[in-house]
Formats: sequence, structure tokens, C-alpha cells
Amino acid sequence: MPMPIHRKTAAPLRWDDVDVRDYKRDGTVPFRDVTRQVLFDDPALACQLRYFEVGPGGHTTLERHEHAHAVMIVRGAGRCLVGQRLFDVGLHDLVHVPALAWHQFRARADAPLGFLCMVNGVRDRPQLPAADDMAALARDPAIAAFLAS
Amino acid sequence: MPMPIHRKTAAPLRWDDVDVRDYKRDGTVPFRDVTRQVLFDDPALACQLRYFEVGPGGHTTLERHEHAHAVMIVRGAGRCLVGQRLFDVGLHDLVHVPALAWHQFRARADAPLGFLCMVNGVRDRPQLPAADDMAALARDPAIAAFLAS
Repeated sequence: MPMPIHRKTAAPLRWDDVDVRDYKRDGTVPFRDVTRQVLFDDPALACQLRYFEVGPGGHTTLERHEHAHAVMIVRGAGRCLVGQRLFDVGLHDLVHVPALAWHQFRARADAPLGFLCMVNGVRDRPQLPAADDMAALARDPAIAAFLAS
Repeated sequence: MPMPIHRKTAAPLRWDDVDVRDYKRDGTVPFRDVTRQVLFDDPALACQLRYFEVGPGGHTTLERHEHAHAVMIVRGAGRCLVGQRLFDVGLHDLVHVPALAWHQFRARADAPLGFLCMVNGVRDRPQLPAADDMAALARDPAIAAFLAS
């Protein structure tokens, strides 16, 4: 079915004809309270645009991959880890995740965190951290606290 | 210079280190009161993400091209023409502009219209309508009124 030209918001950050999906289909991957909506997946476009929403206190999977992410926050606030750095993020902030940077997004305890993510249509599979990767990250006490929060 | 990881909003829908540019550099192309900000232009990503803002009463250029657009409204409201159809658009609505569809975005008289636009990094140049294209569009009285508004 060709993509409809116009999709209205059916509710805030929910769209007509866009399924609210599980974030990860593989149940072995750690995350908490995240939904995924694919907003644009058009063969004529080399990237997809997705909307992820992390519930209060939730977080995405800590992972890395060769492909880059281009992120814009569109709801709420939270924090993210990119590489070895932590950032407070709020409405309309932009986050660039370069190749092979460990990254995770966390909502605040009292608010959701919703963000758009642009990504190449053809891309490699995410890698999860091994024990030594976790130990290297946790050497920074701020990152250790972030990952445990 | 590598892209910074985090760019905060310096003001609503203005970002640190992102220039607010003229929409079109070529002064011969018709448009009214439009700015352009390139949010992500990363060689590792096959698409760019741009933010366009049309001032109250303003409009983008009526044009078409082989490349597709994936649009999300992020500020205000307005109307758009895509192909032979008109749509009222508001916050977070999605608009898909397929190949060779004539398209134009118009803000309302009393509010700006701001939208994200995802587009392939490599793309063809826009085409402007010739007199017979304009005549064909204007055969629909609603489209004629939209283009004259």
C-alpha cells in the first residue's frame, strides 16, 4: 500500500495508521517502558524516521553500532549517554550519535521522554556491551550512577 | 569540524551552532517569509534533516522534483498542496511528498508554520511550474484559491 500523503495526529504523538510497537522484539535485550512508531519508511528515502517514547523512569537499551543516529527530542526531558559523555536533554534538543558510540536515553522519573530518530534504512545490527565494556563505562562514577538510575 | 553530539535549543526552534539561513539562495524563485536550518547533515547518514519555518501569511516555493520529502509539523498550523490535494496541517501531523508531486506549504495569516523535512542527501534540483502546469492546477477552484491566498 502506498504511504498516505497526510497522517493526522490521532492523539498527542500518536498518528493515524501508525502502529505503536514494542521497542524491541527480542525479549532478551534490556530496556524499560519504550514504544516505537515508524513514521516514514519509504523506499524513495534512504533513511527512516521513527518516534520513540520512553515512559517515566524508563530507558532504552545501552548499545552501539556502526550506523549513526540523528535525534530530536519532541516530548518531555531526560538524560542520555553518548560515548563517554552524559547530557541533560529537553524539548527540541538535537543529539548526534556517531558510529560505535555507546548510547542510552533515560526519561526522568516524573516525565516521559519522546524523541525522533533518523537512521539509514540499511544498517548493521546493534551490539550489546560485554562485561569489560560495562566495567570501562562504569569507571566514570557519573556514568555508573546514570546506568544504575 | 565533526558534528557536536548535543545541540541545545537556544530559543524555541533555534539551536546552538545552527545558522538560520535564507530558504532559497536564488532570488528568482517565488516564496514568502521562509527560513531554513539544517539540523543534521552527516556523511554517515544518507538523509539530511532540515527545519523550515514559514512566517504568518508566508509560503514555500511551489515546486516538484524526483526526490521525496518526509515532513512533520512541529510548530503552528497551515495548509499544504501535495499533487492535486489540499490538506489542513497542525502540530505533529505527517506529510509525505512523493516523487514529482507539486507541493507548497502555506502558514495561516495569524500563525507561523514550522516543519521538519527529511530528504535524501543526494537529490535532483526542484522544477518550477510552467504556465501550463499552473493552468492545470488552477482548474480546481480550491487549488486556485490556495495558490492565490
